Amino acid sequence: MARPEFHLFVCTQRRPDGHPRGSCTAKGGAALLDAFAQALIRRNLQGRMALTGTGCLGPCQAGANVLVYPGAVMYSWVEPADAEVIVRQHLLEGEPWVDKLTPSELW
Amino acid sequence: MARPEFHLFVCTQRRPDGHPRGSCTAKGGAALLDAFAQALIRRNLQGRMALTGTGCLGPCQAGANVLVYPGAVMYSWVEPADAEVIVRQHLLEGEPWVDKLTPSELW
Repeated sequence: MARPEFHLFVCTQRRPDGHPRGSCTAKGGAALLDAFAQALIRRNLQGRMALTGTGCLGPCQAGANVLVYPGAVMYSWVEPADAEVIVRQHLLEGEPWVDKLTPSELW
Repeated sequence: MARPEFHLFVCTQRRPDGHPRGSCTAKGGAALLDAFAQALIRRNLQGRMALTGTGCLGPCQAGANVLVYPGAVMYSWVEPADAEVIVRQHLLEGEPWVDKLTPSELW
């Protein structure tokens, strides 16, 4: 693809059950990646926006985490239903969704 | 961590042996992720630069691929020995290493 307008990175880190850091996959990261994929497909944005699953992005305690470049804007405690809002408001309208931003002490 | 000055994304996508697209892991992606980690540790840059392994970044035929934000600068056919050059020249001196950039028809 050409360089994307926005690049979404969705944490899909896995860890064993009972691991003290938990993981974004245990908090729904894989379903979240799928929700973003569906949100992009519904709007036919696959050629303009990139979507990539990742290993750990850092603030495991606030997962599931999603990082958006440009801007290094991170969202935390993200749920599948939030994908639509982030795609519409941040990627299409250019306004990060402040309600879900990762707290500044974590990122 | 605080927002990083640069964020390195190293593709560590795996695919079954014989898959027609191959994979960056089959082309050394895991060793590459480790080489970048070591390069950052040697220069004590872990607090300034972020490093994340990812799923597929797109141009599998040119793997192993590494993507740097800000700037959406992608490197292809990257080998572990290249990590030192990318960290020094791109991340510290601010000059992308043109010899290894992903061809413009792929990114």
